[in-house]
Amino acid sequence: MNNIKFLRLLSRTRSVWAGYDKHPCFLQLSATRTMQTGVSISQIMKEKEVFHDVLPGIIENLQASTKISQQPEVAGWVKQVLEHNLSGGKHSRGLITMLSYEMLEKPESITDEKLKLSRVLGWCVEMLQAYFIVADDIMDGSTTRRGMPCWYRMPNVGLGAINDSILIYCSIMETLDTYLGKTPHFVNVVKLFNEALTYTSMGQHLDYTTANHKKDYSLFTVDRYASIVKYKTSCYTFRLPILLGLSLVQDVDKAIYPDVNDICMKLGHLFQMQDDYIDCYGDETITGKAGTDIQEGKCSWLAVTALKHCNEAQRAMFAQYYGRKEPEHVAIIKRLYDELRLPEIYREEETLVYDNIMNKVRSLPSETAPVFFYKLIDRIYKRKH
Amino acid sequence: MNNIKFLRLLSRTRSVWAGYDKHPCFLQLSATRTMQTGVSISQIMKEKEVFHDVLPGIIENLQASTKISQQPEVAGWVKQVLEHNLSGGKHSRGLITMLSYEMLEKPESITDEKLKLSRVLGWCVEMLQAYFIVADDIMDGSTTRRGMPCWYRMPNVGLGAINDSILIYCSIMETLDTYLGKTPHFVNVVKLFNEALTYTSMGQHLDYTTANHKKDYSLFTVDRYASIVKYKTSCYTFRLPILLGLSLVQDVDKAIYPDVNDICMKLGHLFQMQDDYIDCYGDETITGKAGTDIQEGKCSWLAVTALKHCNEAQRAMFAQYYGRKEPEHVAIIKRLYDELRLPEIYREEETLVYDNIMNKVRSLPSETAPVFFYKLIDRIYKRKH
Repeated sequence: MNNIKFLRLLSRTRSVWAGYDKHPCFLQLSATRTMQTGVSISQIMKEKEVFHDVLPGIIENLQASTKISQQPEVAGWVKQVLEHNLSGGKHSRGLITMLSYEMLEKPESITDEKLKLSRVLGWCVEMLQAYFIVADDIMDGSTTRRGMPCWYRMPNVGLGAINDSILIYCSIMETLDTYLGKTPHFVNVVKLFNEALTYTSMGQHLDYTTANHKKDYSLFTVDRYASIVKYKTSCYTFRLPILLGLSLVQDVDKAIYPDVNDICMKLGHLFQMQDDYIDCYGDETITGKAGTDIQEGKCSWLAVTALKHCNEAQRAMFAQYYGRKEPEHVAIIKRLYDELRLPEIYREEETLVYDNIMNKVRSLPSETAPVFFYKLIDRIYKRKH
Repeated sequence: MNNIKFLRLLSRTRSVWAGYDKHPCFLQLSATRTMQTGVSISQIMKEKEVFHDVLPGIIENLQASTKISQQPEVAGWVKQVLEHNLSGGKHSRGLITMLSYEMLEKPESITDEKLKLSRVLGWCVEMLQAYFIVADDIMDGSTTRRGMPCWYRMPNVGLGAINDSILIYCSIMETLDTYLGKTPHFVNVVKLFNEALTYTSMGQHLDYTTANHKKDYSLFTVDRYASIVKYKTSCYTFRLPILLGLSLVQDVDKAIYPDVNDICMKLGHLFQMQDDYIDCYGDETITGKAGTDIQEGKCSWLAVTALKHCNEAQRAMFAQYYGRKEPEHVAIIKRLYDELRLPEIYREEETLVYDNIMNKVRSLPSETAPVFFYKLIDRIYKRKH
């Protein structure tokens, strides 16, 4: 994309959000319930368009890279793997990366090169997500994802999907090398990806083992849940994208990092409890995936909240039927969730967590950061998929 | 380990190999069949001891690392994953890394710090091998490895092994960060690992898809085989360890790289054809693993060589029974291999490839490199496991 087109799109993006700078009162508590109307659908579409514009170039560069181009057959396959596993979905993590640079950098310091880089880094985050999803779907025995069969269930894929996930990871590293390999950003960015990879796989381990200590529901506590979520979700969903965006910002005020980190953890918690709720109560035609948390015996928000509120008889019923594949057993657990009024408890807690984040965001010392976080939380609050 | 112990072990290691420097004629063609006696078992044991001495420290540092130590439960699990998957086996790749620095560096330039680093990098290569093995055994449905059940078949592991493989990969990156994160070596070493990861997963893809294009044996050619081996084996078995060792050497003569690369590819070819031969003809009590190449329909050296030498009737029989799990069908393929005199053809080709490598090594311009490669090839020639 040429510079002028970039700048035009940029000014469009920024102008819509300029209002937040001028009227932060718009975002006071009383307004929280209507905030979602603050972002027009066409605005979100435009951001996505800018973001999506760079993907073909990234895939083209990957295919032409010194290593992958040596085997055209593999190059073609990598293209298929990426196109399948990066399509559909909301691309929240990629968009956050892009917006984090655009909104946290002083307008006069924004450069075309860094704008482009923020989008490329955003796609690398999307690839990291795809890497985990491909592996996770095999581990969980999931069937559908983003309205399509999971990658390992596609014809001619099968368990070769495990190696395909490695190819996706290599695509991240190749892309970083292509776009940043000769710049001083490279080391920092690689370390951020390594950090997110480590935290996420630590969280995946906690998640997997908690689910597989079947019938030992003493582990299903609110604290354990918070800990799993911090590692398996918050780090790569919010912390990595935002720190990547920040890594491109000139003269970042280091004092902001602890607060940013704290907000990222809280946003991740909100995001994951939503995900868990949607896994059971979501509409598959909107979410594009069939929930398997009950069948897999996952330590989900619904499970820990059910165990917190149930009586002895309900606890015994939970222990008997949770983590089983039979549809009638899944239905028993869903009825138990309804009985315990989990949808109502969920709405109350979602609001509480939301208000808690808003308070934290309001206290941020920076001028631009609150606007960015208002926008972020506006995107995820009361989401349906 | 303290400096004095390191230096003592080093001088022991180097003195045994000093003879090669003085009498290269010892390695002339006529001597090739007796070369294996040139390395005493006690010498190999000492090298292994020096190498093994650093592993507990690496695992300890991993557990104490900023990220992993946050979750003692995960830290304990990472220790188990690494101890299981790094034990047994020959640790050839790790030893090559260590020896490559020790033998390619000028004695007067060797430092304790770099000796230690070469061993640490050696273990990182072993971890890369473990990462691929854990994933590969799941993809191939293997049962045993190094005399133990494959990791995914251990109690309490199952498909969680996929995430465990990611934890192993994270252990590489954490270790590199701990030991090299603040040095100028870091970027180069990370790039070497990324390169090996990319090439190996490209090779794994070619290997997997060739095996899964069942009944289309037109793909089973000597050229295709060479290509698979170059990517899936040579890069991480020889190229990565040797380039890592060289990365620590002071003032490397860059002119040597193309020759080193060429020798690495040839060594990898020899190594893989041996592996394929052993998969069928090896003794499981020595190799520690049950061969599955025939069952998996792998594009192995035996398969491509059989197809090269067979008549129409034999080709039809191959197509009918290759890639099937039934023991009686596996037995038919083994009988076909015997009928085609594959063990004899193998011995002849092994000698040819060996002589070809020796010629290339002899032509190396460097003074120290040939000694190193003589030692290397001496280790793998006519190996039984």
